[in-house]
Amino acid sequence: MFESSRIAHDIDRDRFERQLPKLRTDLLEAQFDLIEARTFPVILVVAGMEGSGVVDALTNASEVLDTRHATTWALAAPTEEESERPRMWRYWRTLPPKGDIGIYAGSWYTTPLTGRILEQHDEAGFEQELQAIKRFEAMLAAEGALILKFWLTIGRKAQEKRLKKLKSDDRTRWRVEESPWGGGKRYRQVERAAEQMMRITHTDHAPWIPVNTENPYYRSLTVGLTILDAINTRLARPDAEQPVSAPVKVPAVDGRTVLTDLDLSLRLDKPDYKKQLAKYQDRLNELVWKKKFRKHSLVLVFEGNDAAGKGGSIRRVTRFLDPRRYRVHQFAAPTDEEKAQPYLWRFWRRLPRRNHIGIFDRSWYGRVLVERVEGFCSEADWRRAYGEINDFEQEMSDAGVIVIKFWLSIDQDEQMKRFRAREQTGYKRYKITDEDWRNRDRWDEYSQAVCDMVDNTSTREAPWTLVEANDKYYARVKVLKTICEQIEQRLGSGKRKK
Amino acid sequence: MFESSRIAHDIDRDRFERQLPKLRTDLLEAQFDLIEARTFPVILVVAGMEGSGVVDALTNASEVLDTRHATTWALAAPTEEESERPRMWRYWRTLPPKGDIGIYAGSWYTTPLTGRILEQHDEAGFEQELQAIKRFEAMLAAEGALILKFWLTIGRKAQEKRLKKLKSDDRTRWRVEESPWGGGKRYRQVERAAEQMMRITHTDHAPWIPVNTENPYYRSLTVGLTILDAINTRLARPDAEQPVSAPVKVPAVDGRTVLTDLDLSLRLDKPDYKKQLAKYQDRLNELVWKKKFRKHSLVLVFEGNDAAGKGGSIRRVTRFLDPRRYRVHQFAAPTDEEKAQPYLWRFWRRLPRRNHIGIFDRSWYGRVLVERVEGFCSEADWRRAYGEINDFEQEMSDAGVIVIKFWLSIDQDEQMKRFRAREQTGYKRYKITDEDWRNRDRWDEYSQAVCDMVDNTSTREAPWTLVEANDKYYARVKVLKTICEQIEQRLGSGKRKK
Repeated sequence: MFESSRIAHDIDRDRFERQLPKLRTDLLEAQFDLIEARTFPVILVVAGMEGSGVVDALTNASEVLDTRHATTWALAAPTEEESERPRMWRYWRTLPPKGDIGIYAGSWYTTPLTGRILEQHDEAGFEQELQAIKRFEAMLAAEGALILKFWLTIGRKAQEKRLKKLKSDDRTRWRVEESPWGGGKRYRQVERAAEQMMRITHTDHAPWIPVNTENPYYRSLTVGLTILDAINTRLARPDAEQPVSAPVKVPAVDGRTVLTDLDLSLRLDKPDYKKQLAKYQDRLNELVWKKKFRKHSLVLVFEGNDAAGKGGSIRRVTRFLDPRRYRVHQFAAPTDEEKAQPYLWRFWRRLPRRNHIGIFDRSWYGRVLVERVEGFCSEADWRRAYGEINDFEQEMSDAGVIVIKFWLSIDQDEQMKRFRAREQTGYKRYKITDEDWRNRDRWDEYSQAVCDMVDNTSTREAPWTLVEANDKYYARVKVLKTICEQIEQRLGSGKRKK
Repeated sequence: MFESSRIAHDIDRDRFERQLPKLRTDLLEAQFDLIEARTFPVILVVAGMEGSGVVDALTNASEVLDTRHATTWALAAPTEEESERPRMWRYWRTLPPKGDIGIYAGSWYTTPLTGRILEQHDEAGFEQELQAIKRFEAMLAAEGALILKFWLTIGRKAQEKRLKKLKSDDRTRWRVEESPWGGGKRYRQVERAAEQMMRITHTDHAPWIPVNTENPYYRSLTVGLTILDAINTRLARPDAEQPVSAPVKVPAVDGRTVLTDLDLSLRLDKPDYKKQLAKYQDRLNELVWKKKFRKHSLVLVFEGNDAAGKGGSIRRVTRFLDPRRYRVHQFAAPTDEEKAQPYLWRFWRRLPRRNHIGIFDRSWYGRVLVERVEGFCSEADWRRAYGEINDFEQEMSDAGVIVIKFWLSIDQDEQMKRFRAREQTGYKRYKITDEDWRNRDRWDEYSQAVCDMVDNTSTREAPWTLVEANDKYYARVKVLKTICEQIEQRLGSGKRKK
């Protein structure tokens, strides 16, 4: 989840120093308004990977805010007073009253998260604790609290570098040495536990906001602007004391997204393409005839811009497959029977049986793409779809289905070229409609929907693969190669990777 | 939870046969309206203890309803088709379309519940499955389904009798012999698993409705009338296709409740009272000085009708306790500081430390009693309070706090007598106010609130004890005796009973 927090942003010092004074003033003003209004408390949870700068973020906050009404809690081991009461007592006694800001570094997440990372708890026990936290936060939100939870991320390499630097300085060495997670030794475990944590406890009223911290300027601006915007938006409401569950906006500091970060210039020349295509088609055919595959089934999801080449890619995938074992599903308007059922029903009924392959040329993601952008369903409907889709794919994965999802991405120029070409080519003419042109006008809205989709539904069980598709050869090979690799990985371990 | 489903009702055959024809006609008519409107599907889950008559309930339903649009699913082991798909596939394929009724005997609860009863799953694993079900039902409800879940209960003795009868008949013997729960051998486990199931998956949009089935006429009327009322209420809404989360009303067939079932004539004469009072006061004093008690603390909650004798009972409890180790808390209007915090904050801050005793003369239950009845908070607020209070008490229990809760119950005549007496007695005059007289006018509303409170918050960790308090002697002894017994039980096992 939150693939976009893997983007290492690049804000330079100059820009940061130009923006900082205004941000500081604005934040302090927002805090004064908050204190004056006394309509709701603000609860900020700050957590993150080792070396991601949680301490720095806290230092920043306490430099900017009026600390008479903003308290930072970095609760470590419980005091004697605390250990003689129920676990949550320490958090209840530190809750900020209306008008105040409570910043939690050691929060209610610390103990469960550490327990899971050190593998003292299994997944079910961890989920049970997270569900209790979810209910606690739902209560706080219902009582009016504005809750923002920041998860600070850092790439593996950058983390190594950062921890090394911290260790080499006497003043900061303790941060690494006293880390309960082993000082970078459990990167994958941290990432997985955090994914489960965010998936279960990310709600509209207490959202997780993952922030990549490799660039400290980006981190400071994003965290600061998000808090500023959330407080001001809430204060501006005539009934500010009433709880809201409107999703928080995270300001785009530099406009970079998982889509803009794709290198669409990637190409493959024809001889290379032919060679690789043949290689992976052979391999795929081998894989699906393996004895191990009989315990599984395969679901391939193809989504992408109009004219991105989904159909062509699918044909390359199916070319040498046994036609009795796969089906390609396309979706027109729902039938009467489908309309009388919940949204996901028409996809459930098409799930392949064991040892079979279901290929979805567009899919259940229509809900959060076209239906969202065109307003075919309410915001509440597409928002709840993220969680429902994750549950759906989890169900599949638990039952042995290998779920592989592609977003084929082209840029606007390439799309225009292909639209024009289709209009010229008689037999492709039917492929271009007024609707395609209309969709094109909403390019930015679709891009936003795609980024949100990838952030919210790229899970360990069913990750998204973004395919640079300006060059059809490159795209088709990447698709086939990814399918082979993911099947191999899954068959290799015999069950889904834990 | 759902203490009222322990009441064995007593509807006679005559009354049943008088009511039945109209109920059948009404139900069938409601179904025709449903079919015609095609605005939403109805999903009925029927589950229950062994011998509680799930099969009979299903037979009833299929006799009454038009089975072209009402299908009963008693899914047992998955078919080959089903076993090759994700677990939930069999339920998706059987979902009723809008206008239809789907009745599930073997439902999505069957496998998790059986797994827990046979102790193949631990509590955390069971909860994880229940949470997945909760999300599934939330999705169904959001898509418009009307969901009612019946849990059929039967007392242990009545169960034995019923199973014996079933076994003695060749036509019904299979029901007992093929029961995966062992044919009555695991009564306590079933009860506990069901409590956890209901606690986690009982929601306004997919409520559990526990029905005592010892009287089959009561069962049939209650189930039938509940379904009838839920369908008609929904159909009557102008936007019937929109999901609702309004709580379902369960019609009171005979007006019997946990309160009306109390025997308020119970008495103790003075010599007996003095003897027993001394005995339990001694025992309590001994218990709280035990070494084992040092790992615990004690929270006593006293609620009850006005003038039911809470204060008097509390004084009998504290008489011989070390004053340094207990505190009695009473609650006036919340302070400014308390108003700036979530509702439960003022109770959290008063939790006793280990080896101490906190006595609450009125408590957090104010939210679902006086605040509900007097409209001091919104319906949404007091409804969510049940779950929050259960979580709160669970937190306490997990931390070793022994939570004991009393409802002191008197009838209206006795209350009037005591009010009058207070008015006569100078030093007790301050105890009777206009508010007391006003509360008295709302007797029925308060009674309803008490029954709902007991049903929703009497848990394994913190059960309610209803005290027949028309006779003060009897009440005080019952309170002291209950405290002693519950402390003993808890200290005996060293930890909370699993």
